[in-house]
Amino acid sequence: MSEHGHHEVGPAHALERLVFFSDAVFAIAITLLVIELHAPHLPRGASDLDYIQALANLIPEFVGFFISFFVIGSFWAGHHRAFSCAKHWDPKLLFPNLEMLCTIAAMPFFTAFVSTNSNTRVPAMLYCGWLVLTALLNMRLQRLATSPAVLAPDVSDETVRTIRRRGLAVLLGAMTGLVVSWFVPALGTPALMSIPLWRLLILRFAEPRGLTAHQR
Amino acid sequence: MSEHGHHEVGPAHALERLVFFSDAVFAIAITLLVIELHAPHLPRGASDLDYIQALANLIPEFVGFFISFFVIGSFWAGHHRAFSCAKHWDPKLLFPNLEMLCTIAAMPFFTAFVSTNSNTRVPAMLYCGWLVLTALLNMRLQRLATSPAVLAPDVSDETVRTIRRRGLAVLLGAMTGLVVSWFVPALGTPALMSIPLWRLLILRFAEPRGLTAHQR
Amino acid sequence: MSEHGHHEVGPAHALERLVFFSDAVFAIAITLLVIELHAPHLPRGASDLDYIQALANLIPEFVGFFISFFVIGSFWAGHHRAFSCAKHWDPKLLFPNLEMLCTIAAMPFFTAFVSTNSNTRVPAMLYCGWLVLTALLNMRLQRLATSPAVLAPDVSDETVRTIRRRGLAVLLGAMTGLVVSWFVPALGTPALMSIPLWRLLILRFAEPRGLTAHQR
Amino acid sequence: MSEHGHHEVGPAHALERLVFFSDAVFAIAITLLVIELHAPHLPRGASDLDYIQALANLIPEFVGFFISFFVIGSFWAGHHRAFSCAKHWDPKLLFPNLEMLCTIAAMPFFTAFVSTNSNTRVPAMLYCGWLVLTALLNMRLQRLATSPAVLAPDVSDETVRTIRRRGLAVLLGAMTGLVVSWFVPALGTPALMSIPLWRLLILRFAEPRGLTAHQR
Repeated sequence: MSEHGHHEVGPAHALERLVFFSDAVFAIAITLLVIELHAPHLPRGASDLDYIQALANLIPEFVGFFISFFVIGSFWAGHHRAFSCAKHWDPKLLFPNLEMLCTIAAMPFFTAFVSTNSNTRVPAMLYCGWLVLTALLNMRLQRLATSPAVLAPDVSDETVRTIRRRGLAVLLGAMTGLVVSWFVPALGTPALMSIPLWRLLILRFAEPRGLTAHQR
Repeated sequence: MSEHGHHEVGPAHALERLVFFSDAVFAIAITLLVIELHAPHLPRGASDLDYIQALANLIPEFVGFFISFFVIGSFWAGHHRAFSCAKHWDPKLLFPNLEMLCTIAAMPFFTAFVSTNSNTRVPAMLYCGWLVLTALLNMRLQRLATSPAVLAPDVSDETVRTIRRRGLAVLLGAMTGLVVSWFVPALGTPALMSIPLWRLLILRFAEPRGLTAHQR
Repeated sequence: MSEHGHHEVGPAHALERLVFFSDAVFAIAITLLVIELHAPHLPRGASDLDYIQALANLIPEFVGFFISFFVIGSFWAGHHRAFSCAKHWDPKLLFPNLEMLCTIAAMPFFTAFVSTNSNTRVPAMLYCGWLVLTALLNMRLQRLATSPAVLAPDVSDETVRTIRRRGLAVLLGAMTGLVVSWFVPALGTPALMSIPLWRLLILRFAEPRGLTAHQR
Repeated sequence: MSEHGHHEVGPAHALERLVFFSDAVFAIAITLLVIELHAPHLPRGASDLDYIQALANLIPEFVGFFISFFVIGSFWAGHHRAFSCAKHWDPKLLFPNLEMLCTIAAMPFFTAFVSTNSNTRVPAMLYCGWLVLTALLNMRLQRLATSPAVLAPDVSDETVRTIRRRGLAVLLGAMTGLVVSWFVPALGTPALMSIPLWRLLILRFAEPRGLTAHQR
């Protein structure tokens, strides 16, 4: 019973609360993206074509919304994956987690900046550069969450390595985006779609194939 | 004990966190609807009637707010219903869930678009069309959440069928709205109220009546 | 073990998720109040007095923020109190809970309306009238959450009665505000402070004094 | 079993829900800070330098965002630390917790005020003064959360003392900021960085060094 009570108020609960708080920040950042989509208000008597034209003008905003939604969603999935292997609370997780959440919370700004100034170099590079920073903070956090002091005893080394390699794939994808933005700004954020390619590449070359398929 | 520990850090926890994150996104999207309701600011000395007039002008916004509140609320209830039958974590849930949440997170935009341009075809059709997409993604997710790999062993086939049939009712209601919007834009979003009718129809004809009443 | 498993995926979990979703909506509505507080931007060279004057002009907004914060906070506390007595899931809770959350989610609009048009009758009455509606939906929900089908077996009748009486006190306070707004708009929302008085009155006259002190 | 059931619906659950609600408010307040960062929209044909200039103009807003992010994050960490020692529910926690959350929820306003009017006395003093109030409410709440009626039995006196001393360090840092703002407004919010210094000072002088290192 004392063991059980300890779990509820002690380390396990502290870890759960950190995860919970992070989930809330991810969820708010991902949902706040919508407030950058301003619904056009057309005068009475506007034709159907006018409405379709008004929507077409919003395409860059929509593309920005969808890309950022899946970027934040992927970081959430990575956080989810790393912390589902964590069992022990370590106060050292607190600030690295907060720093990572800070980069996520700022994403709506960078999304708005790149969406309202589409096809320009500085906003596209800033967006991808911010993702490079996010990916680095993410990798540090994932390393902490899967460090011996935190990790659950029944998690295999292979699982830990896969989590870290996926983190690396995000970094490489963000760097690809950064480089592409310099030369062709319009292709900077679409270049983030190279993340799954990098992941495939890393996972395929770094570990036996059977395991990869199983841990996907 | 190891079995218990496994539950806390392993599959069950991963499922819980997915549900939690989804709840947060639903809650934020549903509450963000209010920021499209702009409080009118009247000059000093305005009469009571001026205020009532200003409020009357907001009726389309209010109607939009209430309809979208209950649309998102219904999708949340469906998610709640499907995942209350899920027991095992499956990484295949991750992206279909994220895609469904993406359509929910975008609802405040479509609500604002249909509210500020009331009685026009394109916004009404877009709103209902977006709901058709949401309903389709919802059905796919519900099928995954009640698939053998995920489902709790003690859930009856009948419960699973009822959940899926309710999902279908939402799709039929959204399609009704889409068709109605084409002919009478002003009746497009009110036609969503056909969802409970479709549900009654499907549940009544598809299964023995006694079970339906019990699972309502 | 099967009993334990049942708890995690079945009724108890469904109830927990409802409570969780409600908490998130309460938390978002209460925190969104701040976006109606627009920070004044003064030109360079403005004096300290200019800044203090600019802040003084915001007093109605601040008062609105604080009143609504504690109004939403009180409804949350009532929800918390009622559901801490609930143990069994009942699908009948779903829609009454959603309806109550809808009135809470709309509070930022009514707060902004009464704050930007201070000392006028219609906004003050609308604010208090909306609270009357919220209080009624709250009472219905609390009755459901403490109904025999939902209630935990170890909760005393006295506790249930206290919860319902507190709900009644909120209704009486909101009605007081509504009546006062008609005659003196500026005192309408401050009249909500009569809620604790109504509560004291009801609790003191309706039950033995010893119990009240213990259940406060 | 009745003991276990009691935990799930009774005191422990009530405490968990309070913590949960607080987490959500902290998470929303911290993420809402981003909506004060308005993405600049430049005309077509603007040069890279124009974009960099536009971003440079936003530096005060960015600094405000980061400072407030870590201020709210620190209060969350303090709340986390204090409540990870709490085990028993006490209704007396409700309003002091709500009051503390109210000061946190208002932070986006004070952040925006100090950011858009950088280097001026009144906004800087108001920001730091608000933090003094927050720190005081925080200290009161931490004292309640670690009071004998609430505290878990296995928490050492030393842990409790460390939590309270950290709360005091935040108060002293906020007061330092308040005093500095009076004389040099531009250094007011940066002076909040003295919080870790105050913490080191208090922890080093107030308790044996070995323990401090262990409880960090």
